[in-house]
Amino acid sequence: MCVTCTHTIHRARHHFGWNRDFEPAIVAKSGETILFECLDSSGGQIGNDATLETLTALDFARINPVTGPVYVEGAAPGDALKITLRAFHPSGAGWTAIIPGFGLLADQFKDPALHVWSYDSGTLAPAAFGPKGRVPLKPFAGTIGVALAEPGLHSVVPPRRVGGNLDIRDLSAGVTLYLPVEVEGALLSIGDTHAAQGDGEVCGTAIESRMDVEATIELVKDARLPAPRFTTPGPVTRHLDGAGYEVTTGIGPDLMTAAREAVMRMVDLLSAEHGLDPNDAYMLCSVCADLRISEIVDLPNWVVSFYFPRIVFD
Amino acid sequence: MCVTCTHTIHRARHHFGWNRDFEPAIVAKSGETILFECLDSSGGQIGNDATLETLTALDFARINPVTGPVYVEGAAPGDALKITLRAFHPSGAGWTAIIPGFGLLADQFKDPALHVWSYDSGTLAPAAFGPKGRVPLKPFAGTIGVALAEPGLHSVVPPRRVGGNLDIRDLSAGVTLYLPVEVEGALLSIGDTHAAQGDGEVCGTAIESRMDVEATIELVKDARLPAPRFTTPGPVTRHLDGAGYEVTTGIGPDLMTAAREAVMRMVDLLSAEHGLDPNDAYMLCSVCADLRISEIVDLPNWVVSFYFPRIVFD
Repeated sequence: MCVTCTHTIHRARHHFGWNRDFEPAIVAKSGETILFECLDSSGGQIGNDATLETLTALDFARINPVTGPVYVEGAAPGDALKITLRAFHPSGAGWTAIIPGFGLLADQFKDPALHVWSYDSGTLAPAAFGPKGRVPLKPFAGTIGVALAEPGLHSVVPPRRVGGNLDIRDLSAGVTLYLPVEVEGALLSIGDTHAAQGDGEVCGTAIESRMDVEATIELVKDARLPAPRFTTPGPVTRHLDGAGYEVTTGIGPDLMTAAREAVMRMVDLLSAEHGLDPNDAYMLCSVCADLRISEIVDLPNWVVSFYFPRIVFD
Repeated sequence: MCVTCTHTIHRARHHFGWNRDFEPAIVAKSGETILFECLDSSGGQIGNDATLETLTALDFARINPVTGPVYVEGAAPGDALKITLRAFHPSGAGWTAIIPGFGLLADQFKDPALHVWSYDSGTLAPAAFGPKGRVPLKPFAGTIGVALAEPGLHSVVPPRRVGGNLDIRDLSAGVTLYLPVEVEGALLSIGDTHAAQGDGEVCGTAIESRMDVEATIELVKDARLPAPRFTTPGPVTRHLDGAGYEVTTGIGPDLMTAAREAVMRMVDLLSAEHGLDPNDAYMLCSVCADLRISEIVDLPNWVVSFYFPRIVFD
């Protein structure tokens, strides 16, 4: 499948959380390309036949497995790992859920909800959501990270200086990501692959989807990088911006409150204009709508805007 | 200049701040198109020959004049005003400044700085910034608002539920904005026109530029709108996304801190890669780079990303 790969890390070689003492799955040299076979973020618990009962019975100890780690020869603290994401090979199946206690509006969406997706993994044509909606796809990896310097096991949930569960939807094919290295060998792992997501991942899940990732790793010695950064070779929203956007706003002195208000208003707008159930509107927002900070200087009120792509209902 | 306009509000008919008791400049009917002649946000104090001394001598009582207000016949509290932004006629001159005490990194950029721009108001070709940078332009109005219900004079600086100094860079030609009406007649004013700005307006100023704005106003009775919202008829970033982006991140439990860190890291990156003075890098970020909330659900750390368009240095 991957003609330039020199290694494949199979799905079975996954781990939960980050730990500098995890045994490497492979040892690689700078410049090599690796195929990471990634599970979905439920670790296969949520399949095509999943129901709300499946969701309620989720084993959270098996959430967000990542494939790896890769020990990169010569990598040392202070270096950066340059990861070029060459290709994604998605499975064609996916899911989005409201998981009680999780998500930006967890206080308002207290009941579980689930949407199971089916999409064409070859054409990546927009995926149907109900009778009218069609969501443009752009596969990426939600979690790309290296081990922390601090010993012990660290939760996979929060992203950190060393990357991890970044959920940056533009970490897609063609993009180069730089991560700070904190331990010898770096210990890179990848997982939590998504077929689509909006900026914010507001309901807490994207189109969670098993897929394989081709990535080339290179070492940048003594880069002294303070935090992850990345370069995109081209536009990042053209798959969904063609028909413009509906935009709601939140305005006030707290960015979190403003973000929440903008999202609530979009849920209300979609429910009113398209007859969507609020749970569906919230999940749909999570997979395709973008949270932007429009203004962060006009004291004391900031503006957070939430951009929903109109092409979904075109 | 405006063939469909039934009114022109001249530059001289501007006011400072919002007040429900301001005398209307004109009375208009729903459906009419109005030409708003807008001053730049310095009210003409910063011209082509401005220097740092001009900036230091700024009279802040004359900052951010808005043209209006328009009394819309039949508008009442609970309605929404639908404002279709038909065209912008920019002057060809502009300025960007670091004003001490103002801006996202005011604690780090304490000295005044000024860049005076010249651009082709006909072609709107990207505007030169130093020997290498060229910033794509997209004119819009930073301030569009109606009067607050609360009596008295209110500062023009913070945006509010009724709009005002929103500084949403996508309020450009073709866009329809909806504002909640809080007083009889609505009392709409427009100003603070910008030739370009990034999401966030991080240094506190955009390409501040005098221009005329054509807008059609319509009344939506009893809309019960909670906050401003808008619709864009097409893509919003294609003028600058062609060569992709350099992206820095801020990761942590506070969105404001994360935003600040992402911007600081971009200033450092631009300074290192393009030899820019940090003041110049900060101003350049403000006019073309976008703050996005990549992830706001992976407790306890959020990711704010700052997207700088590579086309500027292509």
